[in-house]
Amino acid sequence: MSNLAEKAGHNLDLIKVQKPLIHNITNYVVMNFTANALLSVGASPVMAHAEEEVEEMVAFAGALVLNIGTLSDGWIRSMVKAGRKASELHKPIVLDPVGSGATSLRTRTARDIIEQTEVTVIRGNASEVLSLKSEDAKTKGVDSVHAVEDAADTAGILATELGTTLAITGPVDLVTDGSRVVRILNGHPLMGQVTGTGCVATAVTGAFLAVDPSPVDAVVSALGFLGLAGERAAQNASGPGSFAVAFLDALYSITPEELSKSIRLELS
Amino acid sequence: MSNLAEKAGHNLDLIKVQKPLIHNITNYVVMNFTANALLSVGASPVMAHAEEEVEEMVAFAGALVLNIGTLSDGWIRSMVKAGRKASELHKPIVLDPVGSGATSLRTRTARDIIEQTEVTVIRGNASEVLSLKSEDAKTKGVDSVHAVEDAADTAGILATELGTTLAITGPVDLVTDGSRVVRILNGHPLMGQVTGTGCVATAVTGAFLAVDPSPVDAVVSALGFLGLAGERAAQNASGPGSFAVAFLDALYSITPEELSKSIRLELS
Amino acid sequence: MSNLAEKAGHNLDLIKVQKPLIHNITNYVVMNFTANALLSVGASPVMAHAEEEVEEMVAFAGALVLNIGTLSDGWIRSMVKAGRKASELHKPIVLDPVGSGATSLRTRTARDIIEQTEVTVIRGNASEVLSLKSEDAKTKGVDSVHAVEDAADTAGILATELGTTLAITGPVDLVTDGSRVVRILNGHPLMGQVTGTGCVATAVTGAFLAVDPSPVDAVVSALGFLGLAGERAAQNASGPGSFAVAFLDALYSITPEELSKSIRLELS
Repeated sequence: MSNLAEKAGHNLDLIKVQKPLIHNITNYVVMNFTANALLSVGASPVMAHAEEEVEEMVAFAGALVLNIGTLSDGWIRSMVKAGRKASELHKPIVLDPVGSGATSLRTRTARDIIEQTEVTVIRGNASEVLSLKSEDAKTKGVDSVHAVEDAADTAGILATELGTTLAITGPVDLVTDGSRVVRILNGHPLMGQVTGTGCVATAVTGAFLAVDPSPVDAVVSALGFLGLAGERAAQNASGPGSFAVAFLDALYSITPEELSKSIRLELS
Repeated sequence: MSNLAEKAGHNLDLIKVQKPLIHNITNYVVMNFTANALLSVGASPVMAHAEEEVEEMVAFAGALVLNIGTLSDGWIRSMVKAGRKASELHKPIVLDPVGSGATSLRTRTARDIIEQTEVTVIRGNASEVLSLKSEDAKTKGVDSVHAVEDAADTAGILATELGTTLAITGPVDLVTDGSRVVRILNGHPLMGQVTGTGCVATAVTGAFLAVDPSPVDAVVSALGFLGLAGERAAQNASGPGSFAVAFLDALYSITPEELSKSIRLELS
Repeated sequence: MSNLAEKAGHNLDLIKVQKPLIHNITNYVVMNFTANALLSVGASPVMAHAEEEVEEMVAFAGALVLNIGTLSDGWIRSMVKAGRKASELHKPIVLDPVGSGATSLRTRTARDIIEQTEVTVIRGNASEVLSLKSEDAKTKGVDSVHAVEDAADTAGILATELGTTLAITGPVDLVTDGSRVVRILNGHPLMGQVTGTGCVATAVTGAFLAVDPSPVDAVVSALGFLGLAGERAAQNASGPGSFAVAFLDALYSITPEELSKSIRLELS
């Protein structure tokens, strides 16, 4: 754990030095907040979704972030196209399956992206992530899973099945690649009162993946960092409006040393 | 009036308890602010515009919000499709005819939505709402109408003609279903200096419609609540930037009791 | 210089009195921030991108802002269509060639808009603006140009070639129409940590072009004003989140007199 905590700070330092370009194909609702979060962390965001340019753009990027929060046909094609190019170039891909499980379009799109590209990390809430199980598996109990804790065993099996790292966020975050399991205890309830904090977690995970070749370590660093920023922001907030502002300030001002010292992890 | 004031607080309480899902098909400019406002109030926002999923999504929702602020063909089709499904399922629909009267595309789209779906409430400024009159009626004087006060008689006739409740917002807000007329006196001029406060009013009206079957009561509750939040926010604001932040904080922290006590209404 | 400083204040005053309508066809990431910035300055923003309505909308506007930050086919067609109509009606057009030079779609789109419409001002960073040189010129050294200072000579030649006014923003901003060259010294590093401050500069330039027929004077006024707002905002900021909020407040509260007094220009 001490190693992971130290690595989190080291990774944050690497982002601030390397300023990796993060290519986002994400939803309309959170584009501004996501871009500002990446800038605050020290990364360099770019949003580009035209089929004609996504391959060219992703070639410059340190990581690709795919978020299905607001979908339509053209955007789905661009996500797959960018994802295939990123896979070919061995660049990390992080997928946010927003609303997967809620509508068939979203579930199908998330699965298509997973099948057609080499997704490195999937980050979502428990329902979203567990909706990615195959139909057969689904009948074995997905619908009864609500809390992150209950999802741990299922997530390990799913991570192995998909050959990817899963990050299920909630009051406690869970990260697993099927063999390692890490829980992140940082965070604050106000994070759930601001739209896009989950999407920001996905995008910032992209920034950490751009500097750390170990997916589990990168996601743990990212989620610990974001949870700590939430804790800091809550100290100065009178509600969700001022919380969101203070959250960006915290992403900007938390130092690598502070992150290593204050990240709270549980290995199992 | 005392009854309406009490009901406003009661409705706010219901939202916080029931956390209704509000399905928004809205414009790009205000998506983030709208989603954050709904979260601050206690509702649960979802933005989804793909033709393939709007019917599925609206079936989960407590209300549907249609906002024509940034239009294109696919979005218009999705709005009509979602609206028809909501009508079929007897779910409340609130329409924001942004810019209706300014371009023919917007006027035509607003009228199409009204004709093809069962719109429960239309919320806009005086020019937008009165542009929805039929061409014949329009020549009788729409162009001379500028203030909410002048619009009252015309609005009553139009509400009856359309079989819907109209909410015309401005320094004083006017709500009428053709028989009842209520004016809401809460509010602050800084609300006009932040983009999307009108769109937020429409979306939050959706949240109140999800918990109150009386359209007039629901809209009055919503607009009184938003006006009060504007007054609170202005106390802590140095300009439109800090006002928007404080507005979200106020939506989050105003209690049902405070709303009932501070809403200022005029019946006529 | 004293004349230009006085004119900047005068122009700001004109915006607050005339409240010009600014038609924006801009990228998803910055729409909200751009609209709020224009409102804070005193202008009246409208976002409309449907091919069916852009000609009708631009006819009402005092200026047209075209920003290629998030592109797709339909949007490109609408930008060209709106730009042609604005040219026909002799309305000022300001172009933000976001990412031109980075992908061929963006470079090609920016050049198409320049060829097919009468662009009054182009505002971007050095790489973006200098990517607009013809292929032949490009081989003579564009790739080696990084700083605004190095770009001055090339910019003068390019402005003459394109028959437009160029605004290259950075730590020091450079404005030239090929004969006059003005540098603006106002600004703050935090402006680079918030997404869309460049796009806001472009949009606010549109507002100044709507009240001042001299492109160089209008751009210098706009960039001096924005730089001063950045300086003010930084005094109250703890990071990029609170900076963005204070920036909008500063745009709202800086008076014409303060602008004339605090704008810092260098003529050469």
